[in-house]
Amino acid sequence: MELYEQLTAQGDKVRSLKTAKADKADVDAAIQLLLKLKVDYKEVTGQDYKAGCPPSGTAVSNDRQSENGGEEDTVDPWNVATNSAKGVDYDKLIVRFGSSKIDQELVDRIEKVSGQKPHRFLRRGIFFSHRDMNQVLDAYEKQKSFYLYTGRGPSSQAMHVGHLIPFVFTKWLQDVFDIPLVIQLTDDEKYLWKDLSLEDCHRFAEENAKDIIACGFDVNKTFIFSDLDYMGSSPEFYRNVVKVQKHVTFNQVKGIFGFSDSDCIGKISFPAIQAAPAFSSSFPQIFKGRKDVQCLIPCAIDQDPYFRMTRDVAPRIGYPKPALLHSTFFPALQGAQTKMSASDANSSIFLTDTPKQIKNKVNKHAFSGGKDTIEEHREQGGNPDIDVAFMYLTFFMEDDEQLEKIRQDYTSGILLTGELKKMLIETLQPMITAHQENRKNVTDEMVKQFMTPRPLNFNF
Amino acid sequence: MELYEQLTAQGDKVRSLKTAKADKADVDAAIQLLLKLKVDYKEVTGQDYKAGCPPSGTAVSNDRQSENGGEEDTVDPWNVATNSAKGVDYDKLIVRFGSSKIDQELVDRIEKVSGQKPHRFLRRGIFFSHRDMNQVLDAYEKQKSFYLYTGRGPSSQAMHVGHLIPFVFTKWLQDVFDIPLVIQLTDDEKYLWKDLSLEDCHRFAEENAKDIIACGFDVNKTFIFSDLDYMGSSPEFYRNVVKVQKHVTFNQVKGIFGFSDSDCIGKISFPAIQAAPAFSSSFPQIFKGRKDVQCLIPCAIDQDPYFRMTRDVAPRIGYPKPALLHSTFFPALQGAQTKMSASDANSSIFLTDTPKQIKNKVNKHAFSGGKDTIEEHREQGGNPDIDVAFMYLTFFMEDDEQLEKIRQDYTSGILLTGELKKMLIETLQPMITAHQENRKNVTDEMVKQFMTPRPLNFNF
Repeated sequence: MELYEQLTAQGDKVRSLKTAKADKADVDAAIQLLLKLKVDYKEVTGQDYKAGCPPSGTAVSNDRQSENGGEEDTVDPWNVATNSAKGVDYDKLIVRFGSSKIDQELVDRIEKVSGQKPHRFLRRGIFFSHRDMNQVLDAYEKQKSFYLYTGRGPSSQAMHVGHLIPFVFTKWLQDVFDIPLVIQLTDDEKYLWKDLSLEDCHRFAEENAKDIIACGFDVNKTFIFSDLDYMGSSPEFYRNVVKVQKHVTFNQVKGIFGFSDSDCIGKISFPAIQAAPAFSSSFPQIFKGRKDVQCLIPCAIDQDPYFRMTRDVAPRIGYPKPALLHSTFFPALQGAQTKMSASDANSSIFLTDTPKQIKNKVNKHAFSGGKDTIEEHREQGGNPDIDVAFMYLTFFMEDDEQLEKIRQDYTSGILLTGELKKMLIETLQPMITAHQENRKNVTDEMVKQFMTPRPLNFNF
Repeated sequence: MELYEQLTAQGDKVRSLKTAKADKADVDAAIQLLLKLKVDYKEVTGQDYKAGCPPSGTAVSNDRQSENGGEEDTVDPWNVATNSAKGVDYDKLIVRFGSSKIDQELVDRIEKVSGQKPHRFLRRGIFFSHRDMNQVLDAYEKQKSFYLYTGRGPSSQAMHVGHLIPFVFTKWLQDVFDIPLVIQLTDDEKYLWKDLSLEDCHRFAEENAKDIIACGFDVNKTFIFSDLDYMGSSPEFYRNVVKVQKHVTFNQVKGIFGFSDSDCIGKISFPAIQAAPAFSSSFPQIFKGRKDVQCLIPCAIDQDPYFRMTRDVAPRIGYPKPALLHSTFFPALQGAQTKMSASDANSSIFLTDTPKQIKNKVNKHAFSGGKDTIEEHREQGGNPDIDVAFMYLTFFMEDDEQLEKIRQDYTSGILLTGELKKMLIETLQPMITAHQENRKNVTDEMVKQFMTPRPLNFNF
């Protein structure tokens, strides 16, 4: 294990020397040491050194470590962290959270019911887990409609590409099923959790709404709301919040969210506010007072605790349980040990980044699964499972065959890290530029339209 | 102490035999036993037996009991209880709560500033405690206005005379100072605490509003609101709720209100909802967005915990602390050990009671400070301090001299319990009948007017 850590550090050193365009002699010396360490490593462990994969099941290590370091991944609405460079172990998470895997059978069924080719996020396991999706499809086949609910916590003006994932997918769902969508901006939550003023949080909500609208949502089918506004303009919404609040104890939120006695009472009661939009009666203007329209929530899996609670409460207050579709996290540039964060500029590609910034960030910060030297890479190939550039391509490259070819070429060593990064840069640059164009066309008037409580173009 | 309890029980027995018009022989036997016990009691304790006053400081009792039985009075928003027949020890409560006594000097000052004779509730110490009332008067003398905030928890349709106390007094304050008034009906609170539906609580709020309006409030100066409605129609109100919720921890509400981990999160966060109306920015329609108009809250002292919390938070969110005027409790018919309760029909005179019901309840249930026989009463006199009929007269009889004469005559034994009760009945009957007349004239339209968020006739 000690050797493994030495090796990892030395690998980092080589990369940083290269990045800094250091003196060639220094780089070579560092590489020599690296290669020597690798030989030592193989002698001791009997295995080839692989970045991101600590030695396992050998005599040198008597820790009972699993692939990700033996510790459980941390996944809750405020923290996502794992020791594995491949990212969170999502299969384990399904077991821990008690959800169901989106298997090929379900993907096929969605294709059949919707009559559309499944979105790449479904084809590639990016939306990987669900609750009650079959029930939603059963009902839909019997002409019983449902609605979509997703959201965002507006903690800053800056959104990054990872933030788009749920919206891109939700838009696809809305298009193929032709159903209403409500989008909650939890500006109250951000005020409660962060050192921000109410005014700032509300302003961020309006700014974020522009980025969301820029994803192409139809104003006749979509209602976007800020909690700070909508709570104060819908007695029905507040009534549902209070109903949930009556049926959840502090003990329960302590267990689910890890709240403590020194947390403010706003945090403690907030989960009810994220729960309430999962009930159609919170939107009488859309559902004409109907309480029985089922809700489907596409979200990253870190939000599941809110909806486990919601599903627990629903039958006790006479409402259907919301169904869920869970996505994986969008990895930070530095690696899949954590997700992209809006508060760390170097970990993220922002929706406001210029083509040049995108290029620099990817080249400088995107963690590579490639080998340390071209020679090694050509010989042994790269590891796409831990390569951030490759991971990003799985999110954004539409063509399955092209993506598969990249995987094979990278794994075999035909494709070098620099070339892979270039492909990502060429995928991201036009995508972000197009988003920026779309956002520029979103006027304050449009934001106001989307955010006004009103009927949508559906008959309930 | 044992003898004392035997005596109290025997006194109860004599009274119940009389009430039940039992056989004369039985009554006489019971009285004989009572008189014998009283002689024994005096021998052992060296004191005359006084109903409601356990023996104190004597050899027989080595409990370190104070006048009220040694235990601290229970006073919080959900429970009021004491062992003393005189009621809660309000002087001790002032020390415990850290408020200030309304002394003669303050009463005189209110008279001077308002230019009106102080209300009988002030003259008689029924509003007995305050916070920052001098500051309110200082500002008022400098032409700086303030506003009034009081409220009610609508747990049933039935209101009793005790519920009118804060409204009668608040109306007087509004009349003499000519200032806006907001009245909160906490239908959300009642839903959270009781086994009631949201619809019921909201309906009770509207019904209770009629009784409140019947007190004679001016619709141009008064805004009555149900939380369930107003939270959903005022983003400013919700913003203040969230501000308070951010600045109060679970530890704090646990200390202040005694909440536990098994309480629902709605209860835990509710105190913020009772706090928010104490800030003028919660009512932009009335105060035109001004945040600095001070609030004065007349309420029974059991509500003080909410406002201690509110005053603690206020400066941290940039608002003035509300001032307070605290009243004593309106005793139950059975005695001042607890307050009138809407859930116990026999403990209360309801605003819907007929003259006959009033007569029967007072005669049958009003705890008497009189002696058990006419002879004893004529000789030793009654005890007005524990006599519920006399207590009620201090609340409702306007004439100070008349009241003082009653006290003296009752104490000396000239006035018998039956005569005292008759005076109370003759005070209550026309008062309740008049209230019922007024309430009959309150239309749904008027309720709607009072409960619509709108500007009032004041320039802020």
